[in-house]
Amino acid sequence: MARVYNFNAGPSVLPVEALEYAQKELLDFSGSGMSVLECSHRGKEYEAIHNEAAAGIRKLVNVPEEYAILFLQGGASLQFAMVPMNLLAAGQTADYINSGAWAAKAIKEAKLLGSVNVAANTEKEIPTRVPRLDELKLTKGASYVHLTSNETIAGSQWKTFPKTEAPLVADMSSDFLSRPFDVKQFGLIYAGAQKNLGPAGVALVIIRKDLAGRVSDKAPTMLKYTTHIEENSLYNTPPCFSIYFIALVTRWIQKIGLENLYRQNVAKARRIYDVLDAGQFYKGTAVRECRSDMNVTFRLPSEALEDTFVKEASKLGLKGLKGHRSVGGIRASIYNAFPPDGVDKLVEFMRDFQKRNG
Amino acid sequence: MARVYNFNAGPSVLPVEALEYAQKELLDFSGSGMSVLECSHRGKEYEAIHNEAAAGIRKLVNVPEEYAILFLQGGASLQFAMVPMNLLAAGQTADYINSGAWAAKAIKEAKLLGSVNVAANTEKEIPTRVPRLDELKLTKGASYVHLTSNETIAGSQWKTFPKTEAPLVADMSSDFLSRPFDVKQFGLIYAGAQKNLGPAGVALVIIRKDLAGRVSDKAPTMLKYTTHIEENSLYNTPPCFSIYFIALVTRWIQKIGLENLYRQNVAKARRIYDVLDAGQFYKGTAVRECRSDMNVTFRLPSEALEDTFVKEASKLGLKGLKGHRSVGGIRASIYNAFPPDGVDKLVEFMRDFQKRNG
Repeated sequence: MARVYNFNAGPSVLPVEALEYAQKELLDFSGSGMSVLECSHRGKEYEAIHNEAAAGIRKLVNVPEEYAILFLQGGASLQFAMVPMNLLAAGQTADYINSGAWAAKAIKEAKLLGSVNVAANTEKEIPTRVPRLDELKLTKGASYVHLTSNETIAGSQWKTFPKTEAPLVADMSSDFLSRPFDVKQFGLIYAGAQKNLGPAGVALVIIRKDLAGRVSDKAPTMLKYTTHIEENSLYNTPPCFSIYFIALVTRWIQKIGLENLYRQNVAKARRIYDVLDAGQFYKGTAVRECRSDMNVTFRLPSEALEDTFVKEASKLGLKGLKGHRSVGGIRASIYNAFPPDGVDKLVEFMRDFQKRNG
Repeated sequence: MARVYNFNAGPSVLPVEALEYAQKELLDFSGSGMSVLECSHRGKEYEAIHNEAAAGIRKLVNVPEEYAILFLQGGASLQFAMVPMNLLAAGQTADYINSGAWAAKAIKEAKLLGSVNVAANTEKEIPTRVPRLDELKLTKGASYVHLTSNETIAGSQWKTFPKTEAPLVADMSSDFLSRPFDVKQFGLIYAGAQKNLGPAGVALVIIRKDLAGRVSDKAPTMLKYTTHIEENSLYNTPPCFSIYFIALVTRWIQKIGLENLYRQNVAKARRIYDVLDAGQFYKGTAVRECRSDMNVTFRLPSEALEDTFVKEASKLGLKGLKGHRSVGGIRASIYNAFPPDGVDKLVEFMRDFQKRNG
């Protein structure tokens, strides 16, 4: 088997160690004589790994006791609706910061369900960036303030989060567990798992429990955070395998240390940005202060060269470098599990490609 | 590794052949050099297996072209809300048939969202049963009629479905793909995967496309069937691994043949029911005409004996026989992938246990 270098934006590369562990016990989970795919979600073997996944996350980013950690279905896309459904009361307004395509999707859903103020808007700016703190026009008495911590398509990332009076809500799908941060700054955090956490099929929600009480009695049971807080994400059958895999990933991160992983992430990204900055051939998509450590986006002098770049890279086992279909260009997604030697290989290829085509 | 006999009600036993296939390629899916857990849901490798899963189901139960096959998140529990949210217009009424705990859950959610008529109610009856066709009090001009094809907890199952004027909607979570049936009798079918289809984390929906058009423009994007019909269940990142596994299971069923599997299911269930009927020691929970071929439920002369039964069976590798916590007793769930020799072993144990305790 020849493993390739996987630059996919999500689902994306996972720790080989976790994959091998899952493979080994795929027919006999934890000595149960059955696969983790076949275990009852009410049984002690599954319950242990379910709780380990939550405990692992709680430990890695120091989630205080007044916050619940939930594993839900529907991805970040369903959270775009669940957040306003649960937190935005009739007659109130929520502030949304529009930093790109993903923030815009969250805004579109919130507008279906309540009153939204767009507190700043850099969605269409090129080079891409997230708004500066001094640009935010926040609403007095807002229900909450929503931001997108890392724009996977634009390749831009918040480096400092605003301090807001209203609870801060963040879509951290593409950078949660890539860096330490202060959970207490937030009222609610959500993240689709398929970047740094695990495979697709589960969304993580970290919610300050008092905020969950805002929900209307008439909301559907499955769409209320209170339901899942009360039942420890076991109200109905959870996406067991995806949660199991999150537990394996948290084991892996705990062994390395989140601080170390963060330093490695910054170093990996810098190596690629250094190539962009070394000449005029490659052009970074994001404003320097907002450059993402997770998704490095850039352009080449022409679309034809971009096509050639992607094709040649692919032949060398560097896969998934094509930018998002909505914007084109090149995107190197280098999440936690992306190995540093894959970055070496990319950087080497970029220099060589430039030499041949620059 | 010693595989046990897994009588879990769901998540439940899966075909060993499918598990071994998934295990073998867990680090290198379809020659891609990456795990199926790491593949982009927009890539050609994943797309092929995604479409194979839907095509497999379409072929196995002859789903006509005017129906869409969807893979959604949130399980049957979210479908309890999505069905009325999409199909029950304001000012209209939906008929629900209450045949047990699962039907009652669907009714509870529908009542949060619209007007519901309970067309028949056998929820609390012991012995358990589904209503007879002549008991149904249907509403003229109802939006739809909802039933639960197999009550996993009660151990009762519809053998003949009512012919209704309004579109028939069925929760088939626990018997879909266990028997052939006429899809054209239904407007919408949904099923959590974790019984006969695959692992937890995905719900199958088969919907007559014209019905999806009833939904309000104000419904959240993720909760509209139209969204997922238009995007072939790829509007957002789907639960890729669970869908992949459904494809493997449909391969397995196609090899055996659904008719053959159905005959095997009936034969497996009959072997256990024959033991119940052979004396006074075991007492079946369901009325004879409604006995489920998927979940065989029965009582022993005392709860103490039931405890001993479960414990002794477990020591012999017969796992998961404890009845649902809400009703007690014994439940043997014997889905498609449950091997006939496991039924032999259970029957042998039941006879022996009766001899020693009867």
